Amino acid sequence: MARVVEVDDAADPRLADFRDLARADRRPDRPGGRGLVLAEGTVVVRRLLASPYPPRALLGVARRVDDLAPELTGVDVPAYVTDADTMAHVVGFHLNRGVLASADRAPAPGLPALLAGARRVALLEGVNDHENLGALFRNAAALGVDAVIVGPGCADPLYRRSVRVSMGHVLRVPFATAGLDEAVAGLRDAGFVLAALTPGGDPGALAALADRERVALLLGAEGPGLSAEALERADVRVRIPMAGGVDSLNVATAGAVAFHAVAGVPR
Amino acid sequence: MARVVEVDDAADPRLADFRDLARADRRPDRPGGRGLVLAEGTVVVRRLLASPYPPRALLGVARRVDDLAPELTGVDVPAYVTDADTMAHVVGFHLNRGVLASADRAPAPGLPALLAGARRVALLEGVNDHENLGALFRNAAALGVDAVIVGPGCADPLYRRSVRVSMGHVLRVPFATAGLDEAVAGLRDAGFVLAALTPGGDPGALAALADRERVALLLGAEGPGLSAEALERADVRVRIPMAGGVDSLNVATAGAVAFHAVAGVPR
Repeated sequence: MARVVEVDDAADPRLADFRDLARADRRPDRPGGRGLVLAEGTVVVRRLLASPYPPRALLGVARRVDDLAPELTGVDVPAYVTDADTMAHVVGFHLNRGVLASADRAPAPGLPALLAGARRVALLEGVNDHENLGALFRNAAALGVDAVIVGPGCADPLYRRSVRVSMGHVLRVPFATAGLDEAVAGLRDAGFVLAALTPGGDPGALAALADRERVALLLGAEGPGLSAEALERADVRVRIPMAGGVDSLNVATAGAVAFHAVAGVPR
Repeated sequence: MARVVEVDDAADPRLADFRDLARADRRPDRPGGRGLVLAEGTVVVRRLLASPYPPRALLGVARRVDDLAPELTGVDVPAYVTDADTMAHVVGFHLNRGVLASADRAPAPGLPALLAGARRVALLEGVNDHENLGALFRNAAALGVDAVIVGPGCADPLYRRSVRVSMGHVLRVPFATAGLDEAVAGLRDAGFVLAALTPGGDPGALAALADRERVALLLGAEGPGLSAEALERADVRVRIPMAGGVDSLNVATAGAVAFHAVAGVPR
């Protein structure tokens, strides 16, 4: 069981993982940024505790830490318990989810390990918005995507906002970062058909992918879409049929529609 | 052409439509709330000017108002031009989209008029989050939904945040508000099959709807889902196949997946 430690001083140095979050993790690569994985709220903390990321500590109000007691059995980390006001002082803003957990990053799997056994993969390019990236992971988890390759120009999936918007699924769906050439080579080696989602694609070809054994969907950011380099490497270009006068769907929403369309038989 | 009027005083009474927006339209039903339709940014203002909502005025920086010149031909409203700082003083916050338009609300169509000629309709229940509601309208517009019935417990689609998140499509997709009984009766009269999207539904039945002439999808809010009353009234219960351990999709995302699944032949 986690070691419950009551704290009443917001300046307590043991709370360093959780201090001034709005500033500290804006630039995790800069001094003051710590590059930790942070989970907010019981649902997401639960997913963190079930993930490969080694937990470091929890900070929460008593009620929320109590809610997590079953998951904290056998977890040897301190759980700092305090009141909501002290917590707000530490964190730097009022956090209405009432509990946080910190974890260290873990090495990402190599592409062969990531792709072994996967049927559906998303390869993302230029998804530089943390909320869209988080939402993509949430949708991937829900709709049967087995792995995600975070390609060039993407934001950090483990940034706090991505973790939150993903509902913690970014901690659950295996992913690796890779350059375009490496990703394409890895997918081809593993026998994937590469399907680029693009407005110039074939609307009929999307549903046809449901019958293919191994499908990688290439998704670019809303607006610019996929690069010419990514489009050239795809085996097939597909699109979601869209009504006239509508620019596009949000990238996470387009991903959800495409993930569902290629999922194959209902599971 | 709109009458371009240069203003340099943030207190100018002619700018009342745009004053202190964060406070004024939080409660449009309360004193100080004006219940106007407000569009932000050139894309959304364009959609407002093409909509049935009678425009009242524009406020923007010169560059953005110039961008709209083609759409402002033949529109007889004042276009107040000022600098970004004055605009921020009027609005109450810095608005990086650079242009706003106000319009009056317009009477909603009755259900028979709304449903005449429609093939795909969304009936929403309990969607009380303005951003989810806006996103649903955006997805409806993109994926071939011809009309929306805003049922019991939903937020106001014409609230400023809904308009913004919808990218202005809430001004473009016809909608009406209705109680559940009225909505169901109207849909039955117009020959629609009523399909409730619910975790207890049949995953195979969703795609089968693509062959039906007239389909109404009943969507409830994330979390509670559809009420027992709504579920009882549906002809068929359908669901999106979802991976184990995932709670649910965001309601706007679930809507997008379902809209695409029932859309029928690629358009």
